[in-house]
Amino acid sequence: MKRDTRSRDDLNIVLDTASALGLQHQLRQKLIDAIHRGVLRPGRRLPSSRKLAERIGVCRNTVSLAYDALLAENHLVSRARSGIFVASDMASGRIAASARNLGPTSRLIAGLPAPVEDTGFRCPQNWHQYPFPFLDGRITPELLPLPEWREAMRLACSRHEALSWNLGTGDGDDAMLLEEMRSKILPVRGIDAAPDELLMTLSARQALQLVCELLVRRGVPVLLEEPCDVELHRRLRERQADVSMLDPTLGKPLPGAAIVVSSSHRSHDAQSAWPRQLLAAVAAADGILIEHDMPPSTRDGGKLLPALHAIDHDGRVVYISSPAAVVACGEPPGVIVADAALVERLRQLRRNQGTGPSPISQRAWAYFIGLGHYSATLARSSRVLEGRRRALRDALNHYLHEFVSIETTPGASAYWVSLAASIDARELVQRAAANGVLLETARMSGGREAICMGVTSLIESQIRAGVHVLSRLVRGQLAPGSRRIEDAAVAPLSGRALSKTMAGATLLYNTVYGEPCTLEIRKNGELVGTAGYANEDCDRGHWWIEEDRWYRQWTQWAYGEVASYAVVIENDQLRWYGSDGLLADTAVIIRPARSAAKSKGGTSS
Amino acid sequence: MKRDTRSRDDLNIVLDTASALGLQHQLRQKLIDAIHRGVLRPGRRLPSSRKLAERIGVCRNTVSLAYDALLAENHLVSRARSGIFVASDMASGRIAASARNLGPTSRLIAGLPAPVEDTGFRCPQNWHQYPFPFLDGRITPELLPLPEWREAMRLACSRHEALSWNLGTGDGDDAMLLEEMRSKILPVRGIDAAPDELLMTLSARQALQLVCELLVRRGVPVLLEEPCDVELHRRLRERQADVSMLDPTLGKPLPGAAIVVSSSHRSHDAQSAWPRQLLAAVAAADGILIEHDMPPSTRDGGKLLPALHAIDHDGRVVYISSPAAVVACGEPPGVIVADAALVERLRQLRRNQGTGPSPISQRAWAYFIGLGHYSATLARSSRVLEGRRRALRDALNHYLHEFVSIETTPGASAYWVSLAASIDARELVQRAAANGVLLETARMSGGREAICMGVTSLIESQIRAGVHVLSRLVRGQLAPGSRRIEDAAVAPLSGRALSKTMAGATLLYNTVYGEPCTLEIRKNGELVGTAGYANEDCDRGHWWIEEDRWYRQWTQWAYGEVASYAVVIENDQLRWYGSDGLLADTAVIIRPARSAAKSKGGTSS
Repeated sequence: MKRDTRSRDDLNIVLDTASALGLQHQLRQKLIDAIHRGVLRPGRRLPSSRKLAERIGVCRNTVSLAYDALLAENHLVSRARSGIFVASDMASGRIAASARNLGPTSRLIAGLPAPVEDTGFRCPQNWHQYPFPFLDGRITPELLPLPEWREAMRLACSRHEALSWNLGTGDGDDAMLLEEMRSKILPVRGIDAAPDELLMTLSARQALQLVCELLVRRGVPVLLEEPCDVELHRRLRERQADVSMLDPTLGKPLPGAAIVVSSSHRSHDAQSAWPRQLLAAVAAADGILIEHDMPPSTRDGGKLLPALHAIDHDGRVVYISSPAAVVACGEPPGVIVADAALVERLRQLRRNQGTGPSPISQRAWAYFIGLGHYSATLARSSRVLEGRRRALRDALNHYLHEFVSIETTPGASAYWVSLAASIDARELVQRAAANGVLLETARMSGGREAICMGVTSLIESQIRAGVHVLSRLVRGQLAPGSRRIEDAAVAPLSGRALSKTMAGATLLYNTVYGEPCTLEIRKNGELVGTAGYANEDCDRGHWWIEEDRWYRQWTQWAYGEVASYAVVIENDQLRWYGSDGLLADTAVIIRPARSAAKSKGGTSS
Repeated sequence: MKRDTRSRDDLNIVLDTASALGLQHQLRQKLIDAIHRGVLRPGRRLPSSRKLAERIGVCRNTVSLAYDALLAENHLVSRARSGIFVASDMASGRIAASARNLGPTSRLIAGLPAPVEDTGFRCPQNWHQYPFPFLDGRITPELLPLPEWREAMRLACSRHEALSWNLGTGDGDDAMLLEEMRSKILPVRGIDAAPDELLMTLSARQALQLVCELLVRRGVPVLLEEPCDVELHRRLRERQADVSMLDPTLGKPLPGAAIVVSSSHRSHDAQSAWPRQLLAAVAAADGILIEHDMPPSTRDGGKLLPALHAIDHDGRVVYISSPAAVVACGEPPGVIVADAALVERLRQLRRNQGTGPSPISQRAWAYFIGLGHYSATLARSSRVLEGRRRALRDALNHYLHEFVSIETTPGASAYWVSLAASIDARELVQRAAANGVLLETARMSGGREAICMGVTSLIESQIRAGVHVLSRLVRGQLAPGSRRIEDAAVAPLSGRALSKTMAGATLLYNTVYGEPCTLEIRKNGELVGTAGYANEDCDRGHWWIEEDRWYRQWTQWAYGEVASYAVVIENDQLRWYGSDGLLADTAVIIRPARSAAKSKGGTSS
């Protein structure tokens, strides 16, 4: 009897009925986990399916199915009239780890050259909880073609497909995807390429890196068109290229054998002379043009322009693009169009770096395009984004016209917002985040910083309000919060209002280390805190209200001590004032209804 | 009427009933394709589902379902009492491509530094058709856990998962996969790592490249343990590191602050002093050890050794590994275990290169491990590979003991075969391929070449026969084939034997450019030829037999001219002798039964 009790305790399986993952799968995971951790040792007898079902509160069939799956794979063995046991030869070996000191590798870090210039912004994991995330490329769920992706993935995972991945194509790309790119994606920009003139990459950024790695070496003059990727700039300098920005007037001849990286269409007008002028300038210098194109969309605001690659008769253009991210699940692949011999060298480089795109994701993209999902969802999302872009343009004009100038490219889902010289972009970005507005900085000509405002990540009705908050920040109407509670424009919450506001709310703020922190204030008096970019730092605690003050106590954070605060709320911003009457911190507050609806879809693992 | 006829002709849909892809999906692909190509123009009326079903020979429901899917996505529109039409606003724009010359980019190639040293072997796409493919890492289908992978992929593609990919974790890795690596994969080697000490990569090779890119710069002494990756060697020299091979006796002190790349366990004996000697030598030089480990297997021939990382108390070891490729569908991810600060820098580098592993494949791996499929299939495949490895060892001992010396590492699925000095490894590899034996070269100490023989890619019963063919090549018993037909040891085929042998056979040979070529000799008199590493060069033709000679005529290849040959067959090798009586070419011949069975599973797209 005693043994039985112990075994119950150490098995200790709890299933999550709210999880989207089925109970049978959860149970299999937990049992495998217990075997790996040595909780279920080899030869140990498992409870009968009836007993285990009773104990963990699921129906017996769920346990039977889970046992069957584990028996089939020899994790468990069944002995007649004795029951089901953990297989003796299956327990994964494990070696006890020994203690380790922080040693030379950590010291090495200090000796490394400074990291990439910080763009002043890293996207918090819970960006979708912020009321105004203007983040280009993060996608609101209703834009995503989920059933279509599931169909494409299912087809790519079928038995005959899996066998063909396994046979392997050496370092070749998926022939079906190449055909779809050639026949449906590239012709939108007037590009006609043979299969051996295409290379698929993991992302457009990888495509750019591969091309630059192959073609750019010490002393090569490289001219970058603005706006350009800061990281590309840094990598080119690291390769000791002679990097400068491209003069948009093409006022003087380019240096001989220059490599020009064009990252946007300067002009969106089909009549513009720019593309031919640029090609002529590159030709005059006997140079190469690397064209980093926007994803070819069917719409582009109604205008359809050929790529530089398509109007080049000279073989001077290496073309880089990718399908539109807005209809992708995850990062869309990149594609390089170039001379076959160059593609062969790039393919070799990709193989040598161990960074070929996986066959299954290539095949899934091939189905997604080939079944028409790509063009259909792109058309649908273009309509939605068109409306959001207009809303952003109108709001910027209305609220901020004397402080900003904006530009965009056709088909793009973001505006580049240049700020008046008096405004520090990085500071604005940080203060905006504290007010619920997420922005990214962008580097413009002369190293000047601007902000990038995207519309893929928030619904149209939030755009105006978000720009309004931003304009109040820019105009200094939203101070970081009065330092002293006596100076606060709004009175602290009290009584039932305080309790009602806090219970069930989620607070978003930054730790003193600048890392994002999420604080769930549960209605049952619990606190759950997660901090860091990967939620790596977690704690739990309790909260309560006494005499119009909000009390909290963490288990470990803040030394586990009790602290109390007066709370002021203005718009989406919450300010805590400590017992000394001074401002302790600010946070974005998400009200219960909103938070519950969002987290349901988003945060289950 | 006339119009109707034309529209039938230009639509011209043919479905493949033998394809593993369902008819409804095929029909959708063909219709989308026709819309994209402009064959079905906007506003064009489609045939009724009944008519189209009749015409292409499928049941009406198939057509209706395909139409419904395209209607739902607005590719088609339905007008009451008129029928179904191609949507007017959906046709993807396309711009006519203009002519392009081969230009400066192709000239640039000539100016690039020589490509990576050629390892003398590239895997042909149809390696699985060769009778004796000793290719480490290519997997015979019966080893693959396909149903298990489909389950993992299906779970990773479910709705709640897809939403969580989209929310994005910035540049973080999938938390569930990190947990599975920490709790089930790494402890097998005694490694205990916090989540922020792990970074997932696309492959172990990418992991190695990232670590070297970050840590190795000009002048840094780098010592490589043999056998080492040629490409790593080249990249390190390109970074102007001071690269040399590690002295396996550790005879003299390592240079100060040296970086040692250990790519294997020198000793497989748990009692060996080598691991501690190596660590001590690195510590004495205040250096860093990059440990490129074999995938931790539960078996390793019964021995379980801790990683160097696990016995290092000093924080000197950066550990790189990956799950075993033998149970993966496609390349398995790599993992780096290092100090958290170093991991953070590597993560940044990975982001900047645009090469983060996709969230869906990470999640699928997490399920594959978490549901116990990884350990179960690894145990199963270890048993199979153990038998094959023993068969290879025995065959090499029996047939080639005076010409070769072999080594392997525990748990590895390949032997490194060093050849007697009189044997040219590259030439042997090429001649072996012409006799149906696929091998890879490997570089050993002092730049000497050896061959690598793997057993993942062929079944146990083929191993002895393959080594026998190899031994006859080494002993000069298999000449490339007598130059003149009079000297051939075997008489040419004649009459029914010739016809019976050729009809339905598949021939594998190399073009004069050295690229693989596959020739299907169909029973109906057709020839289908595909050449190149990506089957990019194809032709069709006819064959027939007259007066004991085999005739063939291609549409384009060989100038479309008729040629006739006498045919000699010895083992798996076929030799063609031209009308001048001289040897024209040799090929590996695959007999009908074998070829049909193999191509069924393998080559459908």
